Amino acid sequence: MTDVVLKDLPYARLHDEWNELEIEDKLKRFQELSTADAEEFFRELDGNEEAEILIALPTRDQRLWMRVLDPDDAADVIQKIPEEDRVHFLELLDESTRTEVSALMAYDEDQAGGLMSPRYARVRPDMTVDEALLYLRKQALEQVETVYLVYVLDSQQRLLGVVSVRRLFSSSSHLKVSDVMRTNVIKTSEDADQEYLSRLFQEHNLLAIPVVDSNGKMKGIVTIDDIVDVVEEEATEDIQKMGGSEALGDPYLKIALPEMIKKRGGWLFVLFLGELLTANAMGYFEDEISKAVILALFLPLIISSGGNAGSQASTLVVRAMALDEVKLRDWWKVMQREIIVGSSMGIILGVVGYFRVIWWEAAFHTYGQHAHLIGIVVGLSLVGIVLWGSVSGSILPFVLRRVGFDPASASTPFVATLVDVTGVVLYFSIASVILKGTLL
Amino acid sequence: MTDVVLKDLPYARLHDEWNELEIEDKLKRFQELSTADAEEFFRELDGNEEAEILIALPTRDQRLWMRVLDPDDAADVIQKIPEEDRVHFLELLDESTRTEVSALMAYDEDQAGGLMSPRYARVRPDMTVDEALLYLRKQALEQVETVYLVYVLDSQQRLLGVVSVRRLFSSSSHLKVSDVMRTNVIKTSEDADQEYLSRLFQEHNLLAIPVVDSNGKMKGIVTIDDIVDVVEEEATEDIQKMGGSEALGDPYLKIALPEMIKKRGGWLFVLFLGELLTANAMGYFEDEISKAVILALFLPLIISSGGNAGSQASTLVVRAMALDEVKLRDWWKVMQREIIVGSSMGIILGVVGYFRVIWWEAAFHTYGQHAHLIGIVVGLSLVGIVLWGSVSGSILPFVLRRVGFDPASASTPFVATLVDVTGVVLYFSIASVILKGTLL
Repeated sequence: MTDVVLKDLPYARLHDEWNELEIEDKLKRFQELSTADAEEFFRELDGNEEAEILIALPTRDQRLWMRVLDPDDAADVIQKIPEEDRVHFLELLDESTRTEVSALMAYDEDQAGGLMSPRYARVRPDMTVDEALLYLRKQALEQVETVYLVYVLDSQQRLLGVVSVRRLFSSSSHLKVSDVMRTNVIKTSEDADQEYLSRLFQEHNLLAIPVVDSNGKMKGIVTIDDIVDVVEEEATEDIQKMGGSEALGDPYLKIALPEMIKKRGGWLFVLFLGELLTANAMGYFEDEISKAVILALFLPLIISSGGNAGSQASTLVVRAMALDEVKLRDWWKVMQREIIVGSSMGIILGVVGYFRVIWWEAAFHTYGQHAHLIGIVVGLSLVGIVLWGSVSGSILPFVLRRVGFDPASASTPFVATLVDVTGVVLYFSIASVILKGTLL
Repeated sequence: MTDVVLKDLPYARLHDEWNELEIEDKLKRFQELSTADAEEFFRELDGNEEAEILIALPTRDQRLWMRVLDPDDAADVIQKIPEEDRVHFLELLDESTRTEVSALMAYDEDQAGGLMSPRYARVRPDMTVDEALLYLRKQALEQVETVYLVYVLDSQQRLLGVVSVRRLFSSSSHLKVSDVMRTNVIKTSEDADQEYLSRLFQEHNLLAIPVVDSNGKMKGIVTIDDIVDVVEEEATEDIQKMGGSEALGDPYLKIALPEMIKKRGGWLFVLFLGELLTANAMGYFEDEISKAVILALFLPLIISSGGNAGSQASTLVVRAMALDEVKLRDWWKVMQREIIVGSSMGIILGVVGYFRVIWWEAAFHTYGQHAHLIGIVVGLSLVGIVLWGSVSGSILPFVLRRVGFDPASASTPFVATLVDVTGVVLYFSIASVILKGTLL
């Protein structure tokens, strides 16, 4: 964690322009910075950006800049470097850091182990408050991630408790650390998922969470600044999935085009196969359409309104699930709400749809003598499809989660496709009943 | 900011169950906690939850619990309380806090002023490092938001610089604060937008940002734990808008149904009016449909595929804009990418669509002698509509932002509706040209 940062310095302006530059310009501008500025600037880049610069630098400078990084950042950067060059960059580190970095690289990026830093401030339980503060002043010179939370370890590196500098500050000097530390600490295991971690941070407003192994040995700490990125990253993934593609994993302008085509084309193709069913469904009603072509005119209106209602419902439910506001067992509460909301909105659209047909006939005489019946078919179908869209859109995320998929896969295009196919059947079925003996 | 938190205590379990309880049970369980647990628990609730409990408590307890809150939290809670009761709750505070809270309530919730705490650690520039640390130990006993960043103020409360406790720890005792502080600090004004603030925090990995008025006077600090909530809240708003409704503002299961119907029904109705244009467009092609009913069968397939491609594109671009990865001036870069991606995906779907018609004809003989031509119409329309969907879906967020709207309003249903209407025209136009003299 950086404590304080200068502004209006060359490196702060460079931040704003960075994304616009080609790699040659990035390198040039970076090398023009003073050493101190360059160091702060470099540490504030994200892993991808650091990797880009490192690869472009001459080997001598690569060593210098690799060694600027904290072990967790170094592990992150090396994972962004093409596989064949990773050993080269690992070897630039000094031996003890290399060991730390290699250990961190064994974890998934989205687990506590992959987010943690192995460098944290520590004290022994039998120190006095004053000794602890003095010892902490020494550690402040080292590269610990934060000095503000101090972990109390026994001789086997097992986590006994935590004490904040604030607590040390406000305690009598002669008390022992073990008297002022808190023992029943919120901690996490190395394989804890980052979404779970971000919930913990938010629920308890924490600055850092210690990571321990199954024997209670301290492995590192995750700090809240990493969690801001996690929250943003998770939201981005969900948004991209909900828009009907795979999560890109890279910035929109950075991702290679074949990769983008793959991540979007895959889902688009699956949805297309689903949509093909509409052609089958409509083939089944070909007779009705040829007898009353007018029915076809309102089909897009009807199925799209259902799709729109479904998009709203699935989006709201997926997000509420991600925020833990809605749990699996709430499905019935959600369904009840959607039945009320869906039928209310359906009735509004249905009434407007009915009058659209009636008024249009009165004005242009295009729908013939049965305009009134057509209006009823359109109106009823709208009520039904909006209700059905709302209910199915809201239930789909529950079904997906129940069978072990990501609820965010209940994307708006997915729901729209589902509602399209069923909408065709619903619309023509209603028409068959109401128009029997007149138009059909 | 809370420093350290206990787990496996009654209050931690209560967190997990809180959302499930009725208000009577919440009150009962809350009152069963020990005072210390209840205090930690209460401080960790969000503003809405705190307000709910406060309203339900007897007046004597209301005073106690209002006074537990920091001024920024108290301001937040009071804004969640029905307007007619706010004065009552303000009056429960002691006079100096009431003044602070009233000042904070003047700011919007989503501005720096609304997020900041007026209680921060401060020192004078002419103190020595040792004096500063000693003075800080006194402040650690008070309710300052964080003791880890210390703001250096002159006698007029103007911000001169910042020094971290870590820096104080690692500096020689006899140096002056003015020798070790950093002067060109990242700071912000009271009316800075919370999205801008969260960018600052993320770009520079900060723990806190000071808020100053136009005269450089220090007003308070915003800490990173508030920013985690901001990032999540902004993502939620964007997601809800992109799903085609207004941002709900309250949890899905909490928002009143009439409110939900209003927030969803409004957009659904606007989209419905847009979809009505499809009926007009199709009316224009009624002749063609009656001559070749078969054309109608593929219409939903074609317009929905365009809508799906558009949903993907708009979602990716809106999110990239929110993350500042894509700026207004990048519109041409984005368009180039979408032309390539859209035409690639369009060609894939087009080829599959063509063969769907050909194979189906070979197997079931339902499309008649001109199946080959129909296949070409379907295939070409798919290429065109997927390309058009990708391009229009990606450009719409730019247009919206350019004219001052939120790009997130380029919701997937909005894009789908836009593509539906144009898709009808495109499809029948292609059909008119290719089928002229045969089916039409």
